Amino acid sequence: MRLRYKPWANDYIKNNPKLFLNSYINKSELYELFNQFDNINIEVGCGKGQYILEKAKNNPQNLYIAIEKFESVIVFGAKELEKNKLNNLKFYSGDIKELKDNEKFTNQINEIYINFSDPWPKKRHKKRRLTSEFFLNIYYNFLKENGEVIQKTDNDNLFEYSVKEVANDCRFNIEKILLDLHESDTENIKTEYEKKFSSLGFKIKYMKFIKRSKNENRN
Amino acid sequence: MRLRYKPWANDYIKNNPKLFLNSYINKSELYELFNQFDNINIEVGCGKGQYILEKAKNNPQNLYIAIEKFESVIVFGAKELEKNKLNNLKFYSGDIKELKDNEKFTNQINEIYINFSDPWPKKRHKKRRLTSEFFLNIYYNFLKENGEVIQKTDNDNLFEYSVKEVANDCRFNIEKILLDLHESDTENIKTEYEKKFSSLGFKIKYMKFIKRSKNENRN
Repeated sequence: MRLRYKPWANDYIKNNPKLFLNSYINKSELYELFNQFDNINIEVGCGKGQYILEKAKNNPQNLYIAIEKFESVIVFGAKELEKNKLNNLKFYSGDIKELKDNEKFTNQINEIYINFSDPWPKKRHKKRRLTSEFFLNIYYNFLKENGEVIQKTDNDNLFEYSVKEVANDCRFNIEKILLDLHESDTENIKTEYEKKFSSLGFKIKYMKFIKRSKNENRN
Repeated sequence: MRLRYKPWANDYIKNNPKLFLNSYINKSELYELFNQFDNINIEVGCGKGQYILEKAKNNPQNLYIAIEKFESVIVFGAKELEKNKLNNLKFYSGDIKELKDNEKFTNQINEIYINFSDPWPKKRHKKRRLTSEFFLNIYYNFLKENGEVIQKTDNDNLFEYSVKEVANDCRFNIEKILLDLHESDTENIKTEYEKKFSSLGFKIKYMKFIKRSKNENRN
């Protein structure tokens, strides 16, 4: 549907297959790509990709996959990637749902980042929040044992919901909760959105949770 | 040790056995007391007891037990109780640890309240926090299935710690998390401390968690 309004973005994606994971999916090239790197990390909802570009620049040994469903947004990141000539970052134009049954991702991922995702404030939309059971199932499937999900948000309600969902899903262990990330000494790359909302007085909430190993003793 | 400095408080407790659960422990009177009420609820660290006095006044069908280890503090509550002539509230002068192996409490308690407990900020003291594994074990033992613990605090670090401890203990389910209790419509009795710190701009954090039923499906 989006294509109708932004044909230039769609054309850009088609004309630059090397920047986008879309052209690798369902091909053996995907394995070859994965095998070149120590770790594979995913950002879900990367927006214009500033966060993941920074991550990729700082960690050439890892592959980064940046998923974004809005084509007109993701192309900003892709253009930056083109300029920076990084071989360890690929954008995926689409929805993580489209990858969920792709076995190539199962037990492959080390880190998943959820930065300032849509809080979907209405109760009837809560399944769309990126920490609902539906998405936790995808993350669980994708992650290696002890692989981690890191969430940041300025939204209290989304954070309350997210902590509850993760806490009550015993396949995960919460490693860290911070009600004010910027007051802590936790390593952090600030997104553009984060800088703006933080300067307006919003506290940035942070949660890191990991996929429990199957042998772990659980109460 | 405390007795040396507050002999009057200790005398008051000895001279008013009906106000204190201490005189019932290890006697059949404890069963008789428990049997008179619908629900049995405990506050751990009740201070001067304003919160639990209010609870007891509003809910004559329930028995309330208010635990406090500082004798010079608990007598304030006991004196109020004496004035108000409530038969559904007993103070326990001492530490909840002293009750932990008392089988009369096992699977008996409906609600446990932890209001503004000592945050014990030093890492080496973290086991003393009222949501450490040691105390969660006591609550689990005391609570009926689906019985609940309700925690309030103004302290970010204690809250972060508490949520993590409870989240990673799969015997409990987190029912509610609020980063700003006073902004929500959750029923609440404000303690004196709560009013003061809230007026100074501190947000009151809230968590309710329940003892999972053994038959419940767990991920």
